[in-house]
Amino acid sequence: MNYYSENDIKQIVADVLSRSGFAGSKGMEIPVEISARHVHLSKADKDTLFGAGYTLTRKRDLSQPGQYLCEERVKLVTQSGEIANVAVLGPERKETQVELSLTDARVLGLKPPIRLSGDLRGAADVIIVGPKGVITAAGSVIVAKAHVHMTPDDAKKYGVEHGQSVSIRMGTERSVTLNDVQIRVSKDFGLAVHIDYDEANAAQVSGSKIVGQLLKNG
Amino acid sequence: MNYYSENDIKQIVADVLSRSGFAGSKGMEIPVEISARHVHLSKADKDTLFGAGYTLTRKRDLSQPGQYLCEERVKLVTQSGEIANVAVLGPERKETQVELSLTDARVLGLKPPIRLSGDLRGAADVIIVGPKGVITAAGSVIVAKAHVHMTPDDAKKYGVEHGQSVSIRMGTERSVTLNDVQIRVSKDFGLAVHIDYDEANAAQVSGSKIVGQLLKNG
Repeated sequence: MNYYSENDIKQIVADVLSRSGFAGSKGMEIPVEISARHVHLSKADKDTLFGAGYTLTRKRDLSQPGQYLCEERVKLVTQSGEIANVAVLGPERKETQVELSLTDARVLGLKPPIRLSGDLRGAADVIIVGPKGVITAAGSVIVAKAHVHMTPDDAKKYGVEHGQSVSIRMGTERSVTLNDVQIRVSKDFGLAVHIDYDEANAAQVSGSKIVGQLLKNG
Repeated sequence: MNYYSENDIKQIVADVLSRSGFAGSKGMEIPVEISARHVHLSKADKDTLFGAGYTLTRKRDLSQPGQYLCEERVKLVTQSGEIANVAVLGPERKETQVELSLTDARVLGLKPPIRLSGDLRGAADVIIVGPKGVITAAGSVIVAKAHVHMTPDDAKKYGVEHGQSVSIRMGTERSVTLNDVQIRVSKDFGLAVHIDYDEANAAQVSGSKIVGQLLKNG
């Protein structure tokens, strides 16, 4: 059996606290981006909304390679309300997916689940109106679960792995920690935490250069 | 100098983690309430908006003794936008105060500070429209800083004091911890954490019985 002095113990406690992501420790800095409400369209739905064979117009590239904001906008409609001027992201996807904040969902009277992109289990329905047509996008609406995009090299640097849940402490005056943020690793990703406008407003995030602290969950 | 065994150390570390409000520890349960946007009116502003000598109509009592929701509603207007149907709380106060979420503030193009009720340093301006008149409520708009109302007995039970900053971990699926929630102690208070709709949506709070965990900051 080993015995330790009080100073040894203090050092051990400090190490444990630091490694376990204790609120008092600094964590590792990581850039944060806010995702506004948007839709991804399938080719078929794009044809219905904008006309057969229509090509979406790239407005600007997003931080994730290959993804871009389009010039085109659509309107979302339910029996309870509507939201106009909703961004369309390109390129087309296999399935149409609508990503809202819970604030948006209240406006539309929807109760979408919190899901990672691509996971449409229990997703809500919404009507999408385009300039040339209308679709009922059944099972398409989710609220995006906060997540981190990173490359395998980043994962090594932060000491985390694909699918792991971490906490992100926002480095803002209105300090908030998101306790269940999922790590997503791919060589095609750009390093960024993605949160929605409810999470951003809860943390009083503003401006373009936002930094959080990545903390490992205990 | 004292020496400790490995088991002693484990016990000491566990105690430190528990007392310091580490995310892994449970904390103490505390009820949470969501405050929607609302205005408090001075007597003079109430007279201008609703008519001289008008008496506000109590609709229902709020959790804080003596405070009530009124039947009356007002409209908030700026150059950028407007929000109709905003709740008026009674009784009248010394100063008119408008409490919005940051989501509301974006709609109105305002950048109000995060403040405790009654602290209007740097508060933003807004036009308030009533059925009988209009006022420009200069320096009236704040975003409410999250806070806890409790009695001196509650403070003893939770081991906290007036003015102390604590963390509140929301007991919801979309787990969020608010890291700077201020304790307010008065014998006239009812026990409740007050958060706004941005914080509630970031935590996916819904339903009427919401419980958080009070954690002491390290």
